[in-house]
Amino acid sequence: MALQSFIEVEPDSHFPIQNLPYGVFKPEPASVARPGVAIGEYVLDLSEISKAGLFNGPILKDSDCFLQPNLNKFLSLGRPAWKEARDMLQKLLSSNEATLRDNANLRQKSLVPMGKVEMLLPMEIGDYTDFFSSMHHAKNCGTIFRGPANAVPANWYVILKSTSKQGIVSVLTLVYYSIFHLQVYRVVPYFRFHLPIAYHGRASSVVISGTDIVRPRGQFAPSGNSPPPFGPSQKLDFELEMAAVVGPGNELGKPIDVNEAADHIFGVMLMNDWSARDIQAWEYVPLGPFLGKSFGTTLSPWIVTLDALEPFACDSPKQDPQPLPYLAEKISKNYDISLEVQIKPAGKEDSCVVTRSNFKYLYWTLTQQLAHHTINGCNLRSGDLLGTGTISGPEPESLGCLLELTWNGQKPLSLDGFTRKFLEDGDEVTFTGFCKGNGYTVGFGTCSGKIVPSTP
Amino acid sequence: MALQSFIEVEPDSHFPIQNLPYGVFKPEPASVARPGVAIGEYVLDLSEISKAGLFNGPILKDSDCFLQPNLNKFLSLGRPAWKEARDMLQKLLSSNEATLRDNANLRQKSLVPMGKVEMLLPMEIGDYTDFFSSMHHAKNCGTIFRGPANAVPANWYVILKSTSKQGIVSVLTLVYYSIFHLQVYRVVPYFRFHLPIAYHGRASSVVISGTDIVRPRGQFAPSGNSPPPFGPSQKLDFELEMAAVVGPGNELGKPIDVNEAADHIFGVMLMNDWSARDIQAWEYVPLGPFLGKSFGTTLSPWIVTLDALEPFACDSPKQDPQPLPYLAEKISKNYDISLEVQIKPAGKEDSCVVTRSNFKYLYWTLTQQLAHHTINGCNLRSGDLLGTGTISGPEPESLGCLLELTWNGQKPLSLDGFTRKFLEDGDEVTFTGFCKGNGYTVGFGTCSGKIVPSTP
Repeated sequence: MALQSFIEVEPDSHFPIQNLPYGVFKPEPASVARPGVAIGEYVLDLSEISKAGLFNGPILKDSDCFLQPNLNKFLSLGRPAWKEARDMLQKLLSSNEATLRDNANLRQKSLVPMGKVEMLLPMEIGDYTDFFSSMHHAKNCGTIFRGPANAVPANWYVILKSTSKQGIVSVLTLVYYSIFHLQVYRVVPYFRFHLPIAYHGRASSVVISGTDIVRPRGQFAPSGNSPPPFGPSQKLDFELEMAAVVGPGNELGKPIDVNEAADHIFGVMLMNDWSARDIQAWEYVPLGPFLGKSFGTTLSPWIVTLDALEPFACDSPKQDPQPLPYLAEKISKNYDISLEVQIKPAGKEDSCVVTRSNFKYLYWTLTQQLAHHTINGCNLRSGDLLGTGTISGPEPESLGCLLELTWNGQKPLSLDGFTRKFLEDGDEVTFTGFCKGNGYTVGFGTCSGKIVPSTP
Repeated sequence: MALQSFIEVEPDSHFPIQNLPYGVFKPEPASVARPGVAIGEYVLDLSEISKAGLFNGPILKDSDCFLQPNLNKFLSLGRPAWKEARDMLQKLLSSNEATLRDNANLRQKSLVPMGKVEMLLPMEIGDYTDFFSSMHHAKNCGTIFRGPANAVPANWYVILKSTSKQGIVSVLTLVYYSIFHLQVYRVVPYFRFHLPIAYHGRASSVVISGTDIVRPRGQFAPSGNSPPPFGPSQKLDFELEMAAVVGPGNELGKPIDVNEAADHIFGVMLMNDWSARDIQAWEYVPLGPFLGKSFGTTLSPWIVTLDALEPFACDSPKQDPQPLPYLAEKISKNYDISLEVQIKPAGKEDSCVVTRSNFKYLYWTLTQQLAHHTINGCNLRSGDLLGTGTISGPEPESLGCLLELTWNGQKPLSLDGFTRKFLEDGDEVTFTGFCKGNGYTVGFGTCSGKIVPSTP
């Protein structure tokens, strides 16, 4: 029988004793921020547990890591400290352990109803990186933005490249693929993924779930000789992502081996990488996404640890060709995490499911992303955020953003009494994610944000 | 006659009383970091000046901003505080002011010989953004990386674009430009700059002048069907840049008007945006530069304020077409700052000048960069860094990186007894920059770094 807590946890709760995700919260608006773990409908205040002397293992007993306003110090301590904390907390919260269960005073101080707390970003993010790890997403976006001839960046395939070294062959190739417009699937067998590409995102505009998102303004591609149009984005989109939170990290100039990379990943969160497709399309050559993304990125409040996800580990997709040695890992792991996106338009009572995907569709693993990030010597710091990129699955109903779901607005989605090409003012977008265990659910809670009109 | 200090300052010193750039230093290895300003061969310790009660103006008199280990708090106070500090320090250090001049004890405590101090990064950088503001650099890189047909990103020109809306015309255009290979200058009259594009760089790997740079390893473009080669970069380069340091910044969702942008720029530094061209060329489509840049970025220790640069303000280049209203500023200002790059190979006594450029060649102004950065609502925080991008001038001797100077290694540079296509291990690269005043020099000191071999 599964481990049980003395705190009652509904069977479909995201936060049973098997999960224990970490966050940072304020019990009252005037309180200082402090770390906590979610258990059922409560948040366990780790500053109180720490002050009560209950973190009494060898690593944590003299540490003030739970008396900080963020998790960065705890993250920097590494896997042995994380394991010590998890073991202690699972014991403390279990139904047959009296320490907290029978101490009314400590329960009163340390268990706060989740509905009463204000959740904050759980860590100070030094740098936020966003990968592009879904093959399906990469293929679709490439086709939409660059046309089928250029859908696949050169770093992903070689057969096409080898035929296009001479200018004239290049032109013939272009003609060929222009004729076979939208036949990008023909190119699929030639896809060759060589590296998990990524870009640096904006750390300052990462916000906690529940924060409104102001529709960004910007320039769009002009037609003919007119100046570029300017105004509120007309192609505002969500991107269904998850993000890994970095643990100890590395010194500048010292890469992390792919087989040790898991020790540098504390856990995973839901992330909405809001995107303005019209701004992005006009600005992204040759330096990548910038203002099309930097107006806001929303994180769910809870970091679900790799330890809690371990029972849901699954094989990652077969990688062909074999990755280069620095990316070839002894154990290549994905996680079976069901993901769902809902939209609730202004004035509607109910949300409507827009897409369902799964973390397991990612081509590159979290550990490969992290190893690749440091192979040039780049240093990661505790609390850094590594987004996966949009998690699109293989089916039309599993695509991770409206750009793909509506094929850049060409095929509006029919939802429950409304249609959408892109997001409208007042739309509230909510992500959720969970793993189904035997009699319990390890979940991520929700990651949501509402679109508010541009400020003039 | 120019203002003079009681501290002797050589005529060619970068740090006369007209400059007073801000940095952060440790007087002894075991000291805590503290802010200072450079004056001649000395650093004035602002924590001692603050403790002595000499910042007695209305804004700074009760502030602990100079008792911090970085300048972020001072930066956040904005232009009125910066002016108050500058006025007070210029008076305190002037030859006819007795307060410090005649106080041997305070002089002893607060004036530290520059040769004895350790300089540190002057601010905590939340986010580092790198622009692409030199027309000459953009044109050259475009031609080198994408060939003349695609040299100019679509967001910069419209005439070519208007002829290429149909696939077949696009192909013909490509053929045309393939035939006129390397004739990119023919396209120049059609250039139309519309936005100061940029990407987010890596904040964690920004280091202070004097830090060694480890040659990065990575993947490069494969030939034919072979896997991509992997190893130490063979095309390691410098990029001659300057960077603006953000003052107060803005709230998420509230853009900064271009005509108020100068109040959000504290000052400017020299910056070397080290680049691995082979890694960059393979990875940068479609998300922009990542590992080709993130292994290290070097800053000079001193932030020269906009107030000190004001006497060297000059017109910015004529912008054609007229920028969109949100980028159209009432006063459009560049600065006449002479820039120089030297390389000193391992074992050589002397450095050799590689290029000479000038800040005034930038097409987009600092204030336009900042306004563009926030137009989508993106928030800037105190201490954020805005790189200008490589500052290339119009002449072959004024190009800002080896990629351009050697045309991607095709035309090695002949220097004093050695040649270079790209940087070699042991090369020490030093930037300097200065403005020539009437009888004095407002300078930036140096920004240097030495290449050390890859770690295996």
